[in-house]
Amino acid sequence: MTDQEAVEARIDRRRRSRPRFADDRVTMAHGAGGKASRALVEGVIVPAFDNPVLAGLGDAAVVPIEGGPVAMTTDSFVVRPIRFPGGSIGELAVNGTINDLAVTGARAVALSVGLILEEGLEASVLRAEVDAMAAAAAAADVLLACGDTKVVERGRAEKLYVNTSGIGVVDRRARLDPAGVRSGDRVLVSGPIGDHGITILLARGELELEAELESDTASLWPLVDALLDACGDEVRALRDATRGGVATVLNEIALAADVGVVVDEGAVPVRPVVTGACELLGLDPLYVANEGRLVAFVGADATDDALAALRSTAAGRDAAIVGEVVEDRRGRVLGRTSFGGHRMIDMLVGDPLPRIC
Amino acid sequence: MTDQEAVEARIDRRRRSRPRFADDRVTMAHGAGGKASRALVEGVIVPAFDNPVLAGLGDAAVVPIEGGPVAMTTDSFVVRPIRFPGGSIGELAVNGTINDLAVTGARAVALSVGLILEEGLEASVLRAEVDAMAAAAAAADVLLACGDTKVVERGRAEKLYVNTSGIGVVDRRARLDPAGVRSGDRVLVSGPIGDHGITILLARGELELEAELESDTASLWPLVDALLDACGDEVRALRDATRGGVATVLNEIALAADVGVVVDEGAVPVRPVVTGACELLGLDPLYVANEGRLVAFVGADATDDALAALRSTAAGRDAAIVGEVVEDRRGRVLGRTSFGGHRMIDMLVGDPLPRIC
Repeated sequence: MTDQEAVEARIDRRRRSRPRFADDRVTMAHGAGGKASRALVEGVIVPAFDNPVLAGLGDAAVVPIEGGPVAMTTDSFVVRPIRFPGGSIGELAVNGTINDLAVTGARAVALSVGLILEEGLEASVLRAEVDAMAAAAAAADVLLACGDTKVVERGRAEKLYVNTSGIGVVDRRARLDPAGVRSGDRVLVSGPIGDHGITILLARGELELEAELESDTASLWPLVDALLDACGDEVRALRDATRGGVATVLNEIALAADVGVVVDEGAVPVRPVVTGACELLGLDPLYVANEGRLVAFVGADATDDALAALRSTAAGRDAAIVGEVVEDRRGRVLGRTSFGGHRMIDMLVGDPLPRIC
Repeated sequence: MTDQEAVEARIDRRRRSRPRFADDRVTMAHGAGGKASRALVEGVIVPAFDNPVLAGLGDAAVVPIEGGPVAMTTDSFVVRPIRFPGGSIGELAVNGTINDLAVTGARAVALSVGLILEEGLEASVLRAEVDAMAAAAAAADVLLACGDTKVVERGRAEKLYVNTSGIGVVDRRARLDPAGVRSGDRVLVSGPIGDHGITILLARGELELEAELESDTASLWPLVDALLDACGDEVRALRDATRGGVATVLNEIALAADVGVVVDEGAVPVRPVVTGACELLGLDPLYVANEGRLVAFVGADATDDALAALRSTAAGRDAAIVGEVVEDRRGRVLGRTSFGGHRMIDMLVGDPLPRIC
């Protein structure tokens, strides 16, 4: 083993071992969905509960319950500002939870909503978010089954925080298993990436930047439904690329399946305005959060059908094939640049854009 | 109709009509579980979603899902301080959600946990709460199936807020229906009331008061299990008396069943230290929050069996019969004082003890 190989082997072992949580305090990075978040979840939370359902760390858990498996998920939303072009915290909360179920192969059946309200919140703001939730739930034909409201003193929250949990039935067509992703599989994204994160950043008004851009918030169930219909068990794994962006999702799958993923960077759809904002801000669109984009791993033979299925849906009409799974470079994601070179694409480190969901 | 009767009829109509939310801003009272909370939930949230499952406003909703009915509930916890004699926010979050399912007649199967963490939170505090959750879940034999963590900037939350949602299977023995409560039924409470609320108040250290008192936080499933075993469908309705206390729960049932409830105030178990603290603070124990106490409405013939069943459990050993259901005074709760007089016991108004759960 050369020195270089020894170094790589050491890095590799560290990437694969269960992350330790060695910090004394929580930082914003622990909420960003990248490496620090993984350390918090796998270093503190998973060991405490020590059960295989939780340890799967999918977007939703599949719970055996009388009569069959029920998928269950939860998500809290603390996005600021709470209203932004294309959506709002209420809409995001409903669609986000529907999507965590969808990428687990489950159609959402019922949602719960837990509201933490700041004392002094304008009633009109509350009403607008409740209406946004109701509209999103109705559009997706999901029952809002139960809820809870708490109020904290002024300053102890920022307007409102929303938790949505959801349950659904795992679709019979779905045979999703990230560990089943294998060499030769293709990687698709359902549309241009980075829209949501950059929209939020611009909506904060802290930058001297304006652009015609909207959040991509949408229910992903129609896309998953179309994919399963077209490709059945050739759909190996699905993820929605929220916090940590597409890069983090690809790394999660590479580690789970112990495969390499090569991304053809020129094939990844990114709107010019997002590319421009990212260049100005020193961000990489692969790490910017999305709210209505999924990443799909499908068998090579099903690639064309999968692409056509995604493109047949409103939210997937700009879907693209962006990469493939390879035998070597196990547990890693490589970008193939337009100049023919390669770069390693790691999980998100730090928190470039806090509170985007 | 006399003038007095006309006034009463008018008050009565107002009590029964769907509460309107007429405020411009959210106040702490909207989080207290009493009249203002009801106005917020029934005036803003229920109309927006407009579905019968949510409109039932039980502690948990029963969702028809492939294979049979699944009970689902959600609760956010913002209690301060986060640690107090007898428990902590993590334990409360797990038991509270188990209990909302239990009083719906469902044994909890799986829970989700959504954490909103304040930037700078000490890792040791986080670990302690995660451990408390794990211990409570293990004690109740409930699976913690999925979770989510978000981080907000320092000052935008207070240490940590916890949302727990839960699903369970409705027990075959349960025929719970608050609307089915009828004249002659008896009312039981499972132990001394007010322990939790007063414990929290003392733990804040703002009062020059010290007392040997602990929160009553506990899983109520063993009590519900024993009740259903002993009395089956003679158990008409169950509630856990959290925010708003026993008084608010009794009012909810009186309205739902359109019956009167008479409480024998001398029979309601209250620890001397709670009575003392309430007298000093001008509080009524009937309105103070509990976290491990249930109120049961049972058929008259099953009263003794119900009492024995509750007393056979650790958390129910001080259970007592405290009242009965009457034909007149529909929709109202009356207290029979030890001097033989009567007083009207309304729902909680305002918020005497904010953030007790």
